[in-house]
Amino acid sequence: LPVAEKALIARIRRAAGNSAKKKTTVLTGIGDDCAVLRIPKGHEALITTDFSLEGIHFRREWHPAQAVGHRCLTRGLSDIAAMGGQPIAAFLSLAVPRTLPQKWINEFMRGLLALANKFSVTLAGGDTAESPAGILADIVVLGSVPKGKAILRSGVRPGDLIYVTGALGGSAATLHRLMEKPKQKLNPRDFPRHFFPEPRLAVARILREKGLASAMIDLSDGLSTDLGHICDESSVGAQIEAAAIPLAAIGRPPQKVDLAAALHGGEDYELLFAAPTVKHVPAHIAGVPIARIGVITRNKKVVLISENMRRELKPQGWQHFAS
Amino acid sequence: LPVAEKALIARIRRAAGNSAKKKTTVLTGIGDDCAVLRIPKGHEALITTDFSLEGIHFRREWHPAQAVGHRCLTRGLSDIAAMGGQPIAAFLSLAVPRTLPQKWINEFMRGLLALANKFSVTLAGGDTAESPAGILADIVVLGSVPKGKAILRSGVRPGDLIYVTGALGGSAATLHRLMEKPKQKLNPRDFPRHFFPEPRLAVARILREKGLASAMIDLSDGLSTDLGHICDESSVGAQIEAAAIPLAAIGRPPQKVDLAAALHGGEDYELLFAAPTVKHVPAHIAGVPIARIGVITRNKKVVLISENMRRELKPQGWQHFAS
Repeated sequence: LPVAEKALIARIRRAAGNSAKKKTTVLTGIGDDCAVLRIPKGHEALITTDFSLEGIHFRREWHPAQAVGHRCLTRGLSDIAAMGGQPIAAFLSLAVPRTLPQKWINEFMRGLLALANKFSVTLAGGDTAESPAGILADIVVLGSVPKGKAILRSGVRPGDLIYVTGALGGSAATLHRLMEKPKQKLNPRDFPRHFFPEPRLAVARILREKGLASAMIDLSDGLSTDLGHICDESSVGAQIEAAAIPLAAIGRPPQKVDLAAALHGGEDYELLFAAPTVKHVPAHIAGVPIARIGVITRNKKVVLISENMRRELKPQGWQHFAS
Repeated sequence: LPVAEKALIARIRRAAGNSAKKKTTVLTGIGDDCAVLRIPKGHEALITTDFSLEGIHFRREWHPAQAVGHRCLTRGLSDIAAMGGQPIAAFLSLAVPRTLPQKWINEFMRGLLALANKFSVTLAGGDTAESPAGILADIVVLGSVPKGKAILRSGVRPGDLIYVTGALGGSAATLHRLMEKPKQKLNPRDFPRHFFPEPRLAVARILREKGLASAMIDLSDGLSTDLGHICDESSVGAQIEAAAIPLAAIGRPPQKVDLAAALHGGEDYELLFAAPTVKHVPAHIAGVPIARIGVITRNKKVVLISENMRRELKPQGWQHFAS
């Protein structure tokens, strides 16, 4: 191995060692051909993989390395949350250019491992390589969920009510500010939902334990796209009330984002779920506000209602900032 | 999503659908936030991740897309074999440049899925993205092994005998031919161990079932490096006989490779294992020849014996063909 790559492995191994507490589930971690893990009895395994590519998912001039590491793992943890699962271990494949300063990698690992520790996730393996161009990360998260209890994207019925956690559009609106003035530096503390989004694991777990949600997805691509996925999977439609959509507030002083950012902006990592009308969904779960934004319909279209207007809400896919 | 990416997902989903037979283990595959999988009762989960990056692990002008797909999955399956495990499902993260012809992706998937079908592995998920530069693949393989039966890199004792499967050096020697004359086209059929290496899953399974191996690793980095890993993990050394190392034959007519290629060349995906002297290791397992090449020693060095010479065999890491 090239020296830089050896040093990278050693650094990851050292960093991960500090988080390797869960000896009962992660039996063999970094340093063998595979990680060996135990899935809790009566549980099924959940697996998700997500790229974080420089120039596609982040830019080095906009995103501090610590935020890149945090966001990289959030993408995977949020997918586990979307199934109502609990994360067990993460695997990081990381390719870096030869010229990348070591400090960048250290900060990246710091951001990733701080989030891993917060949710008791062990970094249990991965791969390293030299990158031909740019920083390339791929995160794999393994989780578990009690047998037959995973909350899928499918399973909604007409009449089910539609809910979202937290507030929407904060991440995309932050990105728009950066794109408008590419040279500015934003203070990540004033824009946490973009730089340090938190996966909604606690909310998801309670929804699953109480059997409230008929279907769930995380808002990584944006409400219009992700609601489309839910509807497609069950061959139904939805009616959404614009006034009910919780708009995120960003910056200092905080300013509410536009409705468009909340409707189409991705990477909020909030949860979108449906629940039958007979279920009582509290206004807060695990300290996170829950907003009822609409209803599942038999008609297969997704319709947005605002004041006296009705219009079809077409998925406007989240394209990151690829040119 | 960009149109190209949508088409890619649809193509992967369609291709994977054909291989999604194992409904009992892969409960939910591509198309939800996570894959949901069942680990067989009394088994532990194995996970491995491996990059295949254009310019680092393959070159488009040398490696047909089908071979790139095959090799990509072999890397993961071989890691499962090295633990004595059985593969269950694979997850492919694939980022491609906008300009990549669709035919390349189709051929890549064809190579990957042919191998997946051969070993009853379901393609159960992954991620897609636009690549900022070059083709970027990361393969994750989930497997299982009976509880406590994973064959680790550690666990050898002085006196254990050292074995390899098949023949070594074929992949690296092929690569050297390509590097010497970069413009030539080699017929993949004459160089199968480079273009279409087979993971030694059947051999590994029998070794595990019969309890023969005290430690095992797959030869992805090369004998000198991978034997070093085995020795390091147990704080021992080894003595290897040059004449006992099985040299691969490549090309048409077949020519035996140099000893150097067999000692240091990577990506053969053969298995290297140790077994206590009391164990009877057959000369063939699952149709694959098994060669005894040396012995584990108390002295922590790895020594190569050839004719009347003894010299220390230092790990000469496999650097792919990164310049």
